[in-house]
Amino acid sequence: MIDRNFKPRQSKQDYKTHRIPEKQMIFGIRAILEAIEAGKDFDKIFLRRDMSSDLGRQLIAKLNGVPTPIVRVPVEKLNQMTDKNHQGAIAFISPIQFSNIETLIPTLFEEGKTPTIVVLDGVTDVRNIGAIARTCSCTGVDALLIPNRGTASITADAIKTSAGALHTLPVCRTDNLSQTIKYLKDCGLQVIAATEHTSTNYTKADFKQPLALVMGSEDVGISDDILKLATQKVRIPMQGTIESLNVSVAAGVILYEIVRQRGIE
Amino acid sequence: MIDRNFKPRQSKQDYKTHRIPEKQMIFGIRAILEAIEAGKDFDKIFLRRDMSSDLGRQLIAKLNGVPTPIVRVPVEKLNQMTDKNHQGAIAFISPIQFSNIETLIPTLFEEGKTPTIVVLDGVTDVRNIGAIARTCSCTGVDALLIPNRGTASITADAIKTSAGALHTLPVCRTDNLSQTIKYLKDCGLQVIAATEHTSTNYTKADFKQPLALVMGSEDVGISDDILKLATQKVRIPMQGTIESLNVSVAAGVILYEIVRQRGIE
Repeated sequence: MIDRNFKPRQSKQDYKTHRIPEKQMIFGIRAILEAIEAGKDFDKIFLRRDMSSDLGRQLIAKLNGVPTPIVRVPVEKLNQMTDKNHQGAIAFISPIQFSNIETLIPTLFEEGKTPTIVVLDGVTDVRNIGAIARTCSCTGVDALLIPNRGTASITADAIKTSAGALHTLPVCRTDNLSQTIKYLKDCGLQVIAATEHTSTNYTKADFKQPLALVMGSEDVGISDDILKLATQKVRIPMQGTIESLNVSVAAGVILYEIVRQRGIE
Repeated sequence: MIDRNFKPRQSKQDYKTHRIPEKQMIFGIRAILEAIEAGKDFDKIFLRRDMSSDLGRQLIAKLNGVPTPIVRVPVEKLNQMTDKNHQGAIAFISPIQFSNIETLIPTLFEEGKTPTIVVLDGVTDVRNIGAIARTCSCTGVDALLIPNRGTASITADAIKTSAGALHTLPVCRTDNLSQTIKYLKDCGLQVIAATEHTSTNYTKADFKQPLALVMGSEDVGISDDILKLATQKVRIPMQGTIESLNVSVAAGVILYEIVRQRGIE
């Protein structure tokens, strides 16, 4: 089967179809409560907008401390996803386990490592995320940090494109990317932004310190509020008329410059 | 529409479906003869195996000097492609114009350039070809060389992924990759093979001379007969358990090392 209209999937579109083979869907409030108890990581949880039952309120309270994207939708949306008795709640178990950035970074320092994190700000193509994760694994990056919104989900396609790296590379999520980047700065990481809005060639930056490399979206690059948190902006030189590289290629170019500067063979 | 079974397209599979929106199909012997006269470039021409008419023989004679992949097939295959009167011949006009490597290289030398060619040996994913073409354009590569067989066709998807680079970057085809690589060596180009079968770190190679960078297929790398033509084998260092990068990322890493060594800003 060939789809000539193939487009990178947007996370929202993932659920507009009933064909969801790669993510385990669970429905019903008790089932989701049990999955939370069992320590499952969710890709996303859909709750009906006007959830009013006692059990529903219990679920909402429980989700308060869970770092999962929650989407409130009209009940009709849920009815489109399944014809079973969903009780106003449908969840998708993530195909990977997520890590907590706030426990990861101190551990890396304790182990004597030079923490190196890749941050994706709005990368929406699952194949790009997969290819970047693969390169992260090959360059010894310690974790991938993605925001809960505006970046593609970790799908089966992303895992396949990553050559399995997404199963071994720690992946962290955040509801508030700015805040998490500030946390990384507080921990002593340089925040390196790959952007065309600078004259600094990426080979002239110092990549020997602990760092977080921020890569922006395929179309608009890094968002302004993230860009202003950067401690160093670097650009990849461009010849010809095309203005930018594919984001997974750009990430690879900078990550291998980090490897080169650190003298890793 | 989302195709969860999306797979990189093989060139042969392109024609197994009737949905061929991105390539112009022409059929009938006279129509193809006229297209040859008009200087059109073909992606591929399908001829019935037992072509015996005078006009058919005339077409075969004409195609002798045309650098186009020709596939001889049973007439039933052609009937599957169109229900019109194809007279045993169906051709697909290529979405790009191809260049001739044997006129290109001397021209580059005459212009005082340092010819830099990227050679793809068996890359079958059209999106990888597109991303590599995009990087070629951004790094000032002079041409992309692809074999007529065993490498994905230049499709609309490849062009889209290339951000249009495939419309401006010279692309050359060859029926005999070994022979064309020997020609490049005779012209004075170093043949750099990206392979894990060497201990030479790619940053330690000398990329200041005219060169052809050979990238291998996604699964098995560069074929043995091409590998033995290399003047220099280089490897990209790998950490972790994944054995290789995505081929478009690997190409980007080496092409930007070439840019770095040549001091291009």
